[in-house]
Amino acid sequence: MQSGRKTPLLMLPGPTNVPDEVLKAMQMGIINHRGDDFHKLYEEITEGLKYVFQTEQEVFTLTASGTGAVETAISNVIKPGDNVLVLVNGEFGERAAKMAEIFGGKVYKLTADYGYAILPGMLEDFLERNKNMDVMVFVYNETSTGVRNPARELVSIAKDHGLLTICDAISNLGGDYLYMDKWGIDVVVSGSQKCIAAPPGLSFIALSDDAWKKVERNDSRRNYYFDLIRIREFHERRETPFTPAISLFYALKVALELIREEGLENRIKRHIVCSKALREGLRSLNLKLLVKDEEFASRTVTAVINPDNILDSEIRKLMLDKYNIAIAGGMGKLKGKIFRVGTMGIINRDLVIRFLEALENVLRELGYNITEMGKSLVVANNVFERNS
Amino acid sequence: MQSGRKTPLLMLPGPTNVPDEVLKAMQMGIINHRGDDFHKLYEEITEGLKYVFQTEQEVFTLTASGTGAVETAISNVIKPGDNVLVLVNGEFGERAAKMAEIFGGKVYKLTADYGYAILPGMLEDFLERNKNMDVMVFVYNETSTGVRNPARELVSIAKDHGLLTICDAISNLGGDYLYMDKWGIDVVVSGSQKCIAAPPGLSFIALSDDAWKKVERNDSRRNYYFDLIRIREFHERRETPFTPAISLFYALKVALELIREEGLENRIKRHIVCSKALREGLRSLNLKLLVKDEEFASRTVTAVINPDNILDSEIRKLMLDKYNIAIAGGMGKLKGKIFRVGTMGIINRDLVIRFLEALENVLRELGYNITEMGKSLVVANNVFERNS
Repeated sequence: MQSGRKTPLLMLPGPTNVPDEVLKAMQMGIINHRGDDFHKLYEEITEGLKYVFQTEQEVFTLTASGTGAVETAISNVIKPGDNVLVLVNGEFGERAAKMAEIFGGKVYKLTADYGYAILPGMLEDFLERNKNMDVMVFVYNETSTGVRNPARELVSIAKDHGLLTICDAISNLGGDYLYMDKWGIDVVVSGSQKCIAAPPGLSFIALSDDAWKKVERNDSRRNYYFDLIRIREFHERRETPFTPAISLFYALKVALELIREEGLENRIKRHIVCSKALREGLRSLNLKLLVKDEEFASRTVTAVINPDNILDSEIRKLMLDKYNIAIAGGMGKLKGKIFRVGTMGIINRDLVIRFLEALENVLRELGYNITEMGKSLVVANNVFERNS
Repeated sequence: MQSGRKTPLLMLPGPTNVPDEVLKAMQMGIINHRGDDFHKLYEEITEGLKYVFQTEQEVFTLTASGTGAVETAISNVIKPGDNVLVLVNGEFGERAAKMAEIFGGKVYKLTADYGYAILPGMLEDFLERNKNMDVMVFVYNETSTGVRNPARELVSIAKDHGLLTICDAISNLGGDYLYMDKWGIDVVVSGSQKCIAAPPGLSFIALSDDAWKKVERNDSRRNYYFDLIRIREFHERRETPFTPAISLFYALKVALELIREEGLENRIKRHIVCSKALREGLRSLNLKLLVKDEEFASRTVTAVINPDNILDSEIRKLMLDKYNIAIAGGMGKLKGKIFRVGTMGIINRDLVIRFLEALENVLRELGYNITEMGKSLVVANNVFERNS
C-alpha cells in the first residue's frame, strides 16, 4: 500500500478484503507450534472448517496457497497409471489436468468451451463410453470464467460409475452450497483468501474414507511437504509436520468464528443475492457476460466481455485509480478479452452498489454509451429488495 | 494464547518472538497480488533478502515453511539417478536424505554422531574414494543437535570435486556468517521464523548460475507448486505464480528493514555473543552440552543433555508455567534426552540473563544441585562484558 491511500476495495476473484477483527487477530504474538496454546488454536480451526466443509471427516490446514492443496490431493491420491478424468472448462481445470499428468495419471479431458459448464449428460456419455476411469478431478467454481459446474450432479454420476472424485472448491467454498458428506465428494480442497475472507497463505483439504484408502495403498507417492500420511499423523496431536504460519492461523480462527456467527446458509445466500444483483446490474448496461446461462453462473466471480473498443486494462486502471476498487482481467486465453469481478467474503449490498456506480462512471469516461446513468444501481437494488 | 497471559518468551529453535513493528505490519489490508503495490513490496523484500543471503542472485520467497524450500531445492535440482551425497549428523540431515531419495537421487550418506560436526577431512576422504558424486546436500546449522557444520570449508571441498552444493541454512541465516556468492554455494534455502525474526510461513531459495543450468536441463522434474522455472518466470514481473501470503510479506519487509538498520555483521555478532554467553552460563552450572567442541557450537541453538534423574519435560513445563519461557525438547533419537534453547532473532543480553535465572530456579526446584545461585548469570555477564 502506498502511504496515504486507503486499502482498495478488492472485488477480485480473490484475495478479498478481510474484516478488521480478522486482521487484528494477527497482532497476537508468535507461539510455540508444539505447545498447548497452539493445540487449542488448531482444534478450533479444524472444527470451524468441518462446519464450512459440511463434513465429519478431518480437515487439514496447509501452509501453502490453494494450488498447494490441489497438488496435495492429486499427488497423494493419484497413482502412476491411474486413468484420470479431468473436467476442463477454464484455466484452473487445465492446471488440474497438468498436475494429474505430472503426478503420473493417464489424463482424459472432458471439455467445454470457456464460459460453458460441463453438463451432467456430457459426463454420463463419457463414462458410458469409457468404463475404465479411476478418478475424476474437477473445478466446482471455475475462477477464470465464472462458470459454476453442477458439482452435486457430476459427483453423483461419477460415483455411480465407481470413480473417486476430487473437487477444487477454492473459489466458492463458504460462499456457495457444498455438502462434502451428503454429496459424497471424496476429496475437497479450498483456500483461505476467497469466501472464507481470511488472508491468503493457507489452504485446506478433507478426504473421505475411500480416498484415504487409496492414499494408504498408493506406494508410489512421491512428495514430502504435502505428504498426507504425515500430515494426518501430526493432525492427531493437533499439530502440523512443519512450522505453520501461526499468524494466519490466528486470523483464520476469527474468520471461521464470523462464519459461524452469520450462519453458513445465510452467508451462502448473501453471496448468491450479491452476485445475482451484480449480474442483473451489468446486463442492464448492455454488457455481455461470459456465462450466458444463469443456471451456471458463479456466485462468487462474474466475467464480463470487454465492450467494443474498450480494453479491460483501461477499465481496471480507472476503477483502481479513481474509485479505489480492484478488479481483475482475464487469464490465459481470455487475457485481454474480459474483466472479472469477485463477490466474495465481505461482499454486501453497499459494495455491489458502490461498484456499479463506479463502473458506470468509468465506462462513460471511456466512451461507452450509457443511456441512463444510475440504471444498474436501480436494477441491482431491486434484486436486493426482492431477496430481503 | 490463553487470555490474560503474556505471550511467552520463545527461546525455541524457532519460531521466535517477532518485534512489535513486524507484527504491526500485518495490520495493513490485503492487496491485489497482481497489482503495483504488491510489485513494490515484492521488490523490497527481494532486495532485503539478497543482502541477508549475501548474493547478487535473485532470492525467491515461497508461501511454505522451510521444509517446502528444501523440497524446492532438491526436487528441482536433483535428477533421478544423480549421485547425491547428503551430510547427516542430525534429524534435518536425515530429512534431506529422505527427500533426495524421494525425488530420485541415489543417496550416499556421510555421517557423524549426533552432537558432532561433519569435518572437512571426512568429506575430503569420502570424495577421494567416491569420484562420481553429482550433488552435495547439507545442513549448515543442525537444529536438532546444535551443531554448526563448517559450511565454508565443506562447500570449498565439494566444489573442488565438481559437486553442486545445496545448503539448508534455515536455522542460522541472518544470525551466522553465510556468504552465498563468496563461498560459492550453489543453492541456499532459509525460512522466515528463525534469525530473520519474522512470523513463520515463508521460506526462501536462491540459486547460482550453475544450479540454474542443472534445473533447466532437468527434464524429469515432477513438481508444480514448487516448480522453480515457473517461480522464476513470475519473479521477473515481481509476482508469485500462486496467491502469496500477503500479510506475511508485509511482516517480512519490516523484519528485513530491521536487519539492514542493525547491520548484518552486527546482528551476527549479537547472535554469536549471546549463544556463547548462554553456553558458558550453562557450563558453569555443570550442565553437559551435547556439542563438546566450541568450534562447532551453533550460534542459534544449544542442546543441553538432561541432568541425571531430571526429565527435560519437567524442565520445559516449569520454565513455561512459572517463567513464561518456551524451550524445546529433543527430536527423533534425542527425544527425552536433551532440551534445546534457541538464541535467535530478538535475542539479547537481557533475555539470556532472564533465561539463566529462570533455569537456575527451575533446576533447583527439580532437585539439581546448584552450589551458588546466580553463578551462571555472572559468567554470562562476563562474556557480554568481554565482547561489548
